[in-house]
Amino acid sequence: MELLKKTVASIEDPDWRAGEKAQQRLNLLTKPQGSLGKLEDMLLSLAAIQGNPLPVLGDKAVMVMVGDHGVVAEGVSAFPQEVTRQMVLNFLQQGAAINVLAHHAGARVIISDVGMAAEPIQHPDLIQRRVRSGTRNMAREAAMTEAEAIAAIEVGIELVNQEIDRGTGLIATGEMGIGNTTPSTAILACISGKKVEDLTGRGTGLDDAGLIHKQKIIRQSLQINRPDPDHPLEVLHKLGGLEIAAITGIILGAAARRTPVVLDGLISAAAALIACRMNPKCRHYLFASHLSQEPGHRIMLEEIGLEPVLYLDMRLGEGTGAVLVFHLLEAAVKIIHQMASFEEAGVSQRTDAYYTKECSD
Amino acid sequence: MELLKKTVASIEDPDWRAGEKAQQRLNLLTKPQGSLGKLEDMLLSLAAIQGNPLPVLGDKAVMVMVGDHGVVAEGVSAFPQEVTRQMVLNFLQQGAAINVLAHHAGARVIISDVGMAAEPIQHPDLIQRRVRSGTRNMAREAAMTEAEAIAAIEVGIELVNQEIDRGTGLIATGEMGIGNTTPSTAILACISGKKVEDLTGRGTGLDDAGLIHKQKIIRQSLQINRPDPDHPLEVLHKLGGLEIAAITGIILGAAARRTPVVLDGLISAAAALIACRMNPKCRHYLFASHLSQEPGHRIMLEEIGLEPVLYLDMRLGEGTGAVLVFHLLEAAVKIIHQMASFEEAGVSQRTDAYYTKECSD
Repeated sequence: MELLKKTVASIEDPDWRAGEKAQQRLNLLTKPQGSLGKLEDMLLSLAAIQGNPLPVLGDKAVMVMVGDHGVVAEGVSAFPQEVTRQMVLNFLQQGAAINVLAHHAGARVIISDVGMAAEPIQHPDLIQRRVRSGTRNMAREAAMTEAEAIAAIEVGIELVNQEIDRGTGLIATGEMGIGNTTPSTAILACISGKKVEDLTGRGTGLDDAGLIHKQKIIRQSLQINRPDPDHPLEVLHKLGGLEIAAITGIILGAAARRTPVVLDGLISAAAALIACRMNPKCRHYLFASHLSQEPGHRIMLEEIGLEPVLYLDMRLGEGTGAVLVFHLLEAAVKIIHQMASFEEAGVSQRTDAYYTKECSD
Repeated sequence: MELLKKTVASIEDPDWRAGEKAQQRLNLLTKPQGSLGKLEDMLLSLAAIQGNPLPVLGDKAVMVMVGDHGVVAEGVSAFPQEVTRQMVLNFLQQGAAINVLAHHAGARVIISDVGMAAEPIQHPDLIQRRVRSGTRNMAREAAMTEAEAIAAIEVGIELVNQEIDRGTGLIATGEMGIGNTTPSTAILACISGKKVEDLTGRGTGLDDAGLIHKQKIIRQSLQINRPDPDHPLEVLHKLGGLEIAAITGIILGAAARRTPVVLDGLISAAAALIACRMNPKCRHYLFASHLSQEPGHRIMLEEIGLEPVLYLDMRLGEGTGAVLVFHLLEAAVKIIHQMASFEEAGVSQRTDAYYTKECSD
């Protein structure tokens, strides 16, 4: 609890002045002001986060947290729980989508078992930090005790600190855990107060009957546990998952170290929702990536105050959508480092005298 | 005219069977079926275009066509016409956004003057193919003669053939031409029959009065020229631009050579609209990239039948949005080449027996 408290307390606002300086430089570059849209917004955020108008992205990593969910006993997923472990083995053999896409993005893949249900895997590339073997069934009781949730959050904080110490400057969150759209949607339903049927999606591939059943189980979990929506740690321990808690820790830890984090889909956004309720300043260190097919995802991002940039209808998880955004963040950084200014290039500014005046002020 | 006719006539359907084979392979990979969304759609399109279930992207290039517009005499742009030439010099000095983003994407930048108004530039990296020095003022008369439009289209066809002969396997379209959102919007208004005020945007930065004036000029151009919406060449020569015509040629030429083309924003989409009216099979060789701030852009893409994937609120042109999508197309290709299948990885497929049966059929 000490590490969590200390981390939450140490998250500060980014350095807005560095962001303003970056804006001044962007306005001198040979393009209509603001014409690179969200690419410019990304750059300004990175400048403020790093306190550097010319930000530099260091090494990149996607941190894939693994956990299982007691609630799969209720039949809320199209895949059996054994797939969690099999997919971790696949990650370790470089065969999964996240391996391919992280390699394409030039990012390392960090995998940690924080709460898989099956027999542990011994492998040099797997970080063994299991808090417990899967959560309890939240449709019957709290998914975790408060102490377990804190332990999993602190694993995330510790792992992200290790990464940052190693020189990683850009982090994507990812996860593996059969059934984990169910707790994520439950967290959103609790915090937003919105109707479960408006938030719930098909996960990795439920049919209509499966979807209706999933909604019923989420409602039941809310009724059984009755978490206080204003108490994020309570929401997390009663309705969450160990990998969700660890991602919450990654976000808190990265924000405390002024390091940008790119969120993947629904599960990462649920963790971000919890982290931002623990300290709203977290939001300034976060980037949304894609908009997933899960209806709750857009609503979560709105709750946090983020906008997705990739519309790919993905619904895979693992961090696959997040690593695709690294290329865009790098593009944003290169724009300010490499583009010529109007003066350097000898390009006229706008005809409109008023506007030109505004520019030179 | 011969080259144009021959090119339009030689565009065939892509090889759907190669696309189906790619789909079969995708369905075996360790992820829920379809869970990579539009990344999978991109891969299937590339497979069909290349006639290869395991497509390989060769060298990449962005082809930036340059032209000026007589209609700028009506005050439809926030920047003076001299900026077209200054920006071309900036391209040649590697100072513009497209230089930075193309380099980031690993793409060559091909620049051709097909219709700049100002004094020609002598530079080894500029392809000098000027058809005429800017278009005429379409608010008073036809922007080009039919022969001029055909000549500019054929420049595009020739240039793209040269690129493909050189080994380029993936092409982005880009442009530079102060005022060119005005002719592009006029083309859309004519072909779609929609109201000018619903289609017209602020270009690189018009204020409210400028926007209303631009709408008036577009309406006037439609009234003066009265092009037949069902005759794409007539629409193009009366309302278009030399760089728009050249991009039309690039699209036709690439489609005839079974080579994928990524469209940038409004101007590229206007060219694509013309190309697809000349031969609707063009559409299968096209990829949308970003959704720009121009309201007409979304409507154009809908007319063509394409969906953007990047939502960055960009409005710069040059090909900047298009080259950002190269990374995604490459990601799609790597997925099918590098991911493990369920069998290879020893991962269980779905629990649902019915679904599993469907998969194995």
